Amino acid sequence: MEEKPARLTGGRFLIQAEEAEAMAEEAGVAAVTELLPLLVPAAQRLARPPISNYRVGAVGLGTSGRIFLGANLEFPGLPLNHSVHAEQFLVANAAAHGETGIRCIAVSTVPCGHCRQFLQEIRGSAEIQILVTSDEEPAFRPLASLLPLPFGPPDLLHKGVPLLLEPHDNALGATVVPGGGGGRGLSDAIGEGGMEQRLRAAAEAAARASHAPYSGCAAGFAVADVDERVYAGSYLESAAYNPSLGPVQAAMVAWVAAGGGGEDGGWGIVAATLVEEEAAVVSHEGTARIFLEAVAPGVHLKAYRLRSSKAD
Amino acid sequence: MEEKPARLTGGRFLIQAEEAEAMAEEAGVAAVTELLPLLVPAAQRLARPPISNYRVGAVGLGTSGRIFLGANLEFPGLPLNHSVHAEQFLVANAAAHGETGIRCIAVSTVPCGHCRQFLQEIRGSAEIQILVTSDEEPAFRPLASLLPLPFGPPDLLHKGVPLLLEPHDNALGATVVPGGGGGRGLSDAIGEGGMEQRLRAAAEAAARASHAPYSGCAAGFAVADVDERVYAGSYLESAAYNPSLGPVQAAMVAWVAAGGGGEDGGWGIVAATLVEEEAAVVSHEGTARIFLEAVAPGVHLKAYRLRSSKAD
Ligand SMILES: [Zn+2]
Ligand SMILES: [Zn+2]
Repeated sequence: MEEKPARLTGGRFLIQAEEAEAMAEEAGVAAVTELLPLLVPAAQRLARPPISNYRVGAVGLGTSGRIFLGANLEFPGLPLNHSVHAEQFLVANAAAHGETGIRCIAVSTVPCGHCRQFLQEIRGSAEIQILVTSDEEPAFRPLASLLPLPFGPPDLLHKGVPLLLEPHDNALGATVVPGGGGGRGLSDAIGEGGMEQRLRAAAEAAARASHAPYSGCAAGFAVADVDERVYAGSYLESAAYNPSLGPVQAAMVAWVAAGGGGEDGGWGIVAATLVEEEAAVVSHEGTARIFLEAVAPGVHLKAYRLRSSKAD
Repeated sequence: MEEKPARLTGGRFLIQAEEAEAMAEEAGVAAVTELLPLLVPAAQRLARPPISNYRVGAVGLGTSGRIFLGANLEFPGLPLNHSVHAEQFLVANAAAHGETGIRCIAVSTVPCGHCRQFLQEIRGSAEIQILVTSDEEPAFRPLASLLPLPFGPPDLLHKGVPLLLEPHDNALGATVVPGGGGGRGLSDAIGEGGMEQRLRAAAEAAARASHAPYSGCAAGFAVADVDERVYAGSYLESAAYNPSLGPVQAAMVAWVAAGGGGEDGGWGIVAATLVEEEAAVVSHEGTARIFLEAVAPGVHLKAYRLRSSKAD
């Protein structure tokens, strides 16, 4: 019984809608929502918390019927704000797969205030149903009951602005200028061949998809592993600023969700690229650099800054 | 009437108990708790939010009867997790002045989830009374009603471990080892004369006072201004990790609370020193470096790492 969830998910972070239905039937539950808590132990096993050794797993049902898993990540040698909580992992995972909403989430530990705040970025967040598997009598309850009187997007944004899980296609500058701290221009990138171009393209696509309505500073980050696979992450901003998920963390979510990295704490990053806008009031370049120093020593950050041609 | 609170506080972030009583009487309110909301506009004016231009002010009453103000700080060029919220400012300000508890807080905007989480680090947090001055009918309500079913210190710590506003005297290593990224040993420090010794002593005292029960990584940061005044801050950790207030941010709270820095965004930092433990699993050195690059370009970080002599 204990091993059933692991067998069911096979270590994956995304389950397609039809498969979710089949799994619910196989597990003998009446609905996919009842399957979610059964998958939480599998999500917990995917956590990488070398600092706390406290494994948190979260399993969410998207409006598409797909199931998304999340687990917490921690990075020794860095401040704790580099950590990724399981609920944030789940949301970033859903965003990366074009999910447009989250209906319910089962999680191993009651969500912290930081996560209750981050979830406000989702349209209809008040009605997201949360179940905590460690409760004595686990039951779904609306997020609004966990964060009453919320501060969130409606306090700062016009109604029509897309929220986190809604499509984003940020207009970015077309002209590449060298970033500080070792970034290079486009011509250098072309000169270095395929991988650098792939990383830049992935980071730029992630920047286009990023959710940064508060600062206006779109950003994307991409990393490559030894097998030349590329993983990218979009900056996901919170109305409350501090709970924002940086593009570096979002890329590590993509990495883990795709089965990359090692449980032993080694990540195996061999190249990394940041794309953000020139003179951005919120810049991730310095923090990406110190992240690489701690997690992938010796890997040089390539930073591209995009400038609107209008600004020339 | 609009100017009354500013006149009352005189731009200060700490009001002694007797003065608070006198101010309440002068303002014609029956109790100091009723004075708090009247001071919120003054706190808001002290905010430095160059990114959001969204001024938040918080005014809290300590168990000693003293009043502590807080305002939000933002730092352009860095990720948003370097921001300090008004409520965190208030708590760090209270901690730096040896306050042992917070009874109630009046704040201009409803606290975000990140702050509701950070406040969990205070003993008896469930009963802290919160009033939001922008509410239609402002009234004090317990923090427990804003963050029901909290995740917090009781989930991770033994009962006897001191919480954020309780006295801390962390045992630190006695032997100084050079930090990475430009730190130096004690002999160099002595060679450079008084200021470096003062900064190191202040940062070390702050590290001793820091609240880091989750990682065990005490840390302190100290900065000096052109007038050779020194401001230090203690690392203040959150059970939920990400809402932790870094020692750099805590030092900037001390700086602003003491009237340092400029409203124009210039901070005027001329020297900066970090003290943390060797091989700390949570290290602030990289983030302190990028903070200085953005806020005080050209100022070199001196990083001291302390090693327990037992470990030699
Ligand atoms: Zn959380
Ligand atoms: Zn806040």
